[in-house]
Amino acid sequence: MRFTTFGESHGSKIGGILDGFPAGIPIDMDFIQFQMSRRKPGQSALTSPRSESDTVEFLSGIYDGVSTGAPIGFQIANKDRKSDDYDHLKDVFRPSHADFTYAKKYGIRDHRGGGRSSARETANWVVCGSLAQHLLKDIDISAYVEQVGPIICPKPWYELDLKSIDQFDTRCPDPDTSEKMTAWIEKMKLEKDSTGGIVRCVVQGLEVGLGEPIFGKLQARLGEALFSLNAVKGLEFGTGFQAASMKGSEHNDVWKSDKTMKSNHAGGILGGISTGEPLHFRLAFKPTATIGKAQTALNNQGETTQLEAQGRHDPCVVPRAIPIVEALTAFVLADLRLENKTRRP
Amino acid sequence: MRFTTFGESHGSKIGGILDGFPAGIPIDMDFIQFQMSRRKPGQSALTSPRSESDTVEFLSGIYDGVSTGAPIGFQIANKDRKSDDYDHLKDVFRPSHADFTYAKKYGIRDHRGGGRSSARETANWVVCGSLAQHLLKDIDISAYVEQVGPIICPKPWYELDLKSIDQFDTRCPDPDTSEKMTAWIEKMKLEKDSTGGIVRCVVQGLEVGLGEPIFGKLQARLGEALFSLNAVKGLEFGTGFQAASMKGSEHNDVWKSDKTMKSNHAGGILGGISTGEPLHFRLAFKPTATIGKAQTALNNQGETTQLEAQGRHDPCVVPRAIPIVEALTAFVLADLRLENKTRRP
Amino acid sequence: MRFTTFGESHGSKIGGILDGFPAGIPIDMDFIQFQMSRRKPGQSALTSPRSESDTVEFLSGIYDGVSTGAPIGFQIANKDRKSDDYDHLKDVFRPSHADFTYAKKYGIRDHRGGGRSSARETANWVVCGSLAQHLLKDIDISAYVEQVGPIICPKPWYELDLKSIDQFDTRCPDPDTSEKMTAWIEKMKLEKDSTGGIVRCVVQGLEVGLGEPIFGKLQARLGEALFSLNAVKGLEFGTGFQAASMKGSEHNDVWKSDKTMKSNHAGGILGGISTGEPLHFRLAFKPTATIGKAQTALNNQGETTQLEAQGRHDPCVVPRAIPIVEALTAFVLADLRLENKTRRP
Amino acid sequence: MRFTTFGESHGSKIGGILDGFPAGIPIDMDFIQFQMSRRKPGQSALTSPRSESDTVEFLSGIYDGVSTGAPIGFQIANKDRKSDDYDHLKDVFRPSHADFTYAKKYGIRDHRGGGRSSARETANWVVCGSLAQHLLKDIDISAYVEQVGPIICPKPWYELDLKSIDQFDTRCPDPDTSEKMTAWIEKMKLEKDSTGGIVRCVVQGLEVGLGEPIFGKLQARLGEALFSLNAVKGLEFGTGFQAASMKGSEHNDVWKSDKTMKSNHAGGILGGISTGEPLHFRLAFKPTATIGKAQTALNNQGETTQLEAQGRHDPCVVPRAIPIVEALTAFVLADLRLENKTRRP
Repeated sequence: MRFTTFGESHGSKIGGILDGFPAGIPIDMDFIQFQMSRRKPGQSALTSPRSESDTVEFLSGIYDGVSTGAPIGFQIANKDRKSDDYDHLKDVFRPSHADFTYAKKYGIRDHRGGGRSSARETANWVVCGSLAQHLLKDIDISAYVEQVGPIICPKPWYELDLKSIDQFDTRCPDPDTSEKMTAWIEKMKLEKDSTGGIVRCVVQGLEVGLGEPIFGKLQARLGEALFSLNAVKGLEFGTGFQAASMKGSEHNDVWKSDKTMKSNHAGGILGGISTGEPLHFRLAFKPTATIGKAQTALNNQGETTQLEAQGRHDPCVVPRAIPIVEALTAFVLADLRLENKTRRP
Repeated sequence: MRFTTFGESHGSKIGGILDGFPAGIPIDMDFIQFQMSRRKPGQSALTSPRSESDTVEFLSGIYDGVSTGAPIGFQIANKDRKSDDYDHLKDVFRPSHADFTYAKKYGIRDHRGGGRSSARETANWVVCGSLAQHLLKDIDISAYVEQVGPIICPKPWYELDLKSIDQFDTRCPDPDTSEKMTAWIEKMKLEKDSTGGIVRCVVQGLEVGLGEPIFGKLQARLGEALFSLNAVKGLEFGTGFQAASMKGSEHNDVWKSDKTMKSNHAGGILGGISTGEPLHFRLAFKPTATIGKAQTALNNQGETTQLEAQGRHDPCVVPRAIPIVEALTAFVLADLRLENKTRRP
Repeated sequence: MRFTTFGESHGSKIGGILDGFPAGIPIDMDFIQFQMSRRKPGQSALTSPRSESDTVEFLSGIYDGVSTGAPIGFQIANKDRKSDDYDHLKDVFRPSHADFTYAKKYGIRDHRGGGRSSARETANWVVCGSLAQHLLKDIDISAYVEQVGPIICPKPWYELDLKSIDQFDTRCPDPDTSEKMTAWIEKMKLEKDSTGGIVRCVVQGLEVGLGEPIFGKLQARLGEALFSLNAVKGLEFGTGFQAASMKGSEHNDVWKSDKTMKSNHAGGILGGISTGEPLHFRLAFKPTATIGKAQTALNNQGETTQLEAQGRHDPCVVPRAIPIVEALTAFVLADLRLENKTRRP
Repeated sequence: MRFTTFGESHGSKIGGILDGFPAGIPIDMDFIQFQMSRRKPGQSALTSPRSESDTVEFLSGIYDGVSTGAPIGFQIANKDRKSDDYDHLKDVFRPSHADFTYAKKYGIRDHRGGGRSSARETANWVVCGSLAQHLLKDIDISAYVEQVGPIICPKPWYELDLKSIDQFDTRCPDPDTSEKMTAWIEKMKLEKDSTGGIVRCVVQGLEVGLGEPIFGKLQARLGEALFSLNAVKGLEFGTGFQAASMKGSEHNDVWKSDKTMKSNHAGGILGGISTGEPLHFRLAFKPTATIGKAQTALNNQGETTQLEAQGRHDPCVVPRAIPIVEALTAFVLADLRLENKTRRP
């Protein structure tokens, strides 16, 4: 499958095309729209107040509710644009924002809402991931928020109720931790500041064999996809960075006499290929770059200037990142599953 | 550019093809062979004793010492093969090794030295990266070992002498730390065990503008490349996972009155595009899976069995990983630099 | 550059995304719309009466009339749909039409207007080609109709006034021939039949050096693009099929003492690379498959049935194919020109 | 599958890598070597006297005679190099040869035997095609010579014994025609001249459904592959250029009452997808550019000069082109067959 998108934060529409989706799959529009609602802004007090219904309009590739094998084209309207809010950014580059690099790379920049660099693009990804989920009905992909600023969920994933994630605005399924996270995000909002966080994703029920050995390793495909997500600064699989401190005899996932693995430090991947154990990984998100607090910025003329950024932004992106992380993961897994059909005669 | 490879640990040869390398570049064979010698086994007491000269034979694309624009084909002989050492692994899957997933995915497996899953493949990558370096003579790419097991280098990268890295068998350019790392690796070797570690890579002198905004972000391209490296379990750019705990007002790299950035938490990338500040990132390596210590393994018949693995292996892969990390980084940067030529008329 | 499209004949919209278009190019909307008008149905008595304004709506990648380097997304409405006209084709496969192969390949088929197999898709291509033309202002790409059914233009391309092509509904710039072609097409229309034809395309002003030597030869890239055009059954470059009868000493384009080439049997390509001489090639189009005349068709149940096809169709597609052939050619040339920027340091 | 190659006419070796070949296929080495012998020079009085055994050495991806799913790397030695024969071409561009365009594009050129532009590369393609044939055991791909210079085979393909093709040095399975072709080629050789020709390829037993509807049409994929073959100047499917003169009611392949098609003007493709009828197409080859006869050439200094080309060349390439055409066809069909596995759930 190949996924292609277009769109800017303040254009009239965004959208995309999914090529290579198999024919004959009944498409569940309610499921797709439900995923969209999990990502959309304005869904809770913790998110940006921009109001978008994010209704997906499918334009091709589906006939009588069933995929035809033709490219699936779709679009989403940008309704609640307030481009004037961004006039003060026309000549100013926000610190730690794509403003600066876009201007230097291309010599031209759509400053309204961040243009192409806006996370609005991720709405497209959720459409694509929701379609991919139609090919993965036998597996469960659950992402949740494990950390917000200094607040860390004290329980491992297998002690949490992953089915309850959506009941929390923070998307952390541990009630106590979620409460603390809420308080922290509200504090950041009040301070016109922002906060980073960590997302964990767990995939259960995956078969052995997804991923290509050298180029196209499962972790490389996921790495490429997940580092495309704005604000992601780190990714680790299984035991990840902690594995650096360990001995082989500690880290190795040896087999038990009942032929299951004793541990899953590998995070479900060996040699670039899924093992059949749960796939799990963690993603670090930096704090939102655009904040209301005064900062020293640079302008088009190369001069420094004081900036108190306007516009509507999330004080913390991780709750809304959950469906996006799941969508990107679903796309990679569905694609590798199709690819795997060709690896044996 | 496109890079394609073939080869197994115990085949007669490994090799590759680099397509799209520009014409008219004089090729420095000594430089390439020097990079190979930095990766090859048997270079110090800390590495696998397999003895390979790793002499690269170029077969095409270079005429009178200059690139012609045609594909560059090359091969490297596997000289010191001891395939019999692996007979005991023919029917056994080593814990935490690709043995298991290859067998399940393909239904057939070349068990000798790990076959295609062997890190021997990375010799090909060093050839490719060394060629890419010919297009990057104005920038400096330096990777070094920052951690081995519990031993952590206490100094930040900008306080180290990156020019001295190769003077240390550990490839950690802090003499005291290097000594402790050496002791730790030797201890692991004696215990028939292994250890993980962390590599940091720093790129200085890079221009603004490398990387594509949405699909093809600089961090996504590097993520795809670096997660292809056997044993890598984590990757973080700039402040990475620590950014999760920070506020926007702390993390943002604001400009100073002299128009340089006050900090570089971003690690040299904003919006998927290089900023012109040093690019830096960290890679976590798990401990080598193959150890001499007894472990419970699984065999082809689905039974558990005790295994004390033979064959020649590194007790710690990170010192030898240094030229490989540099090579992969060089390939991605050179490719994006060529790509960038097409982004303006 | 990469071009991706979606859309069916009777969906609400068709559209596409052009990735990799350079930043900083002022976009000439009038030029694009003019090209669209050359392709659209209903433009003369010789074409299908379907009435579409084919107004292109650009959705991204252009800011203040200038390309930004971001993907260019666009859409075109399908206004004049008469899907009911196709009800009689729901269960019947038209002879020599994609109906049959789509049904067998996918097990599901959108029968309205041919669905994805409709030449309506080529409207997308004209948008893409018109954008590509912005990168080719120094060269001239002219296609014209050289043959319709038994009527053949007796003059070689260099004796025709290629600037006058659009003055003829047939798009054959030889007045006498054009008149005969018109008569033939009208006769076919009256007979509820259709006719094939031949298009020649001539590119003047092209530089030496476009095309890659082995995979990606100029003729291979054009071949791939042009055989994507519905109804194309043959393609030949330069002297083409006649070269088979010639001796090397006749066919070789030797140099004259003034250092220009004496002939151009090669059609402007040697070794897969443009020579700087005019690039020229010919395309054979089969007659439109859908005709009003009674024919024996097959239905979904595998039974033969008599069919007099309804719906609106062109009795001869070649006049409308002209801007499409130019568009595909422009896309390939612009893409190779960008690629060529990376072939030398 | 992806196929990548390297090599020049007078390098020490040529070779390639086939990625994505399925695991578990027993590889028939004799079959591959037999195909190589059908292509190799020196096989008859009609071909170049260069003597190459063209023994293929496989370096990876095959274990115990069975494909492992890993990349298949291989190489072929260039044994009979006589590079000195080409010294007179170091500064001279042969008319109608890649010499000129390579020099202009890259600014550097390996003149020995044509370097990368040599048809020696096609030995690699035969290896790849022979591997692909392992996935196509149920279909028959037969190419043969239909025309050499003015000599044209008077019989249609279905009246010829396609099993007897290899019994003729000309590869034309009509004894009378073959004799006349032989005489013509020998005459050209004596005159130090060369001749063009036409190859027809027929594929029988192919299933319905290969090819993608818009980008990736069966004819487009074949077009891309076949126009990569040196000297090919034209390609037509089914009735091809003759279809231009026909009416729809003549050209349409209507169904008969027994539900088979009455004709096969389409050449086995509708809407870019195979129909299940025989796939057939014709390829026009220009005469070999390099001839012994005196011609006016251009040199590096931009001056014209008289040239009587030395080196070993075929007076007619079409007999040796047969296994190459079959190989390219096999590769495309095998690849599309794998791709087709992913088009339905």
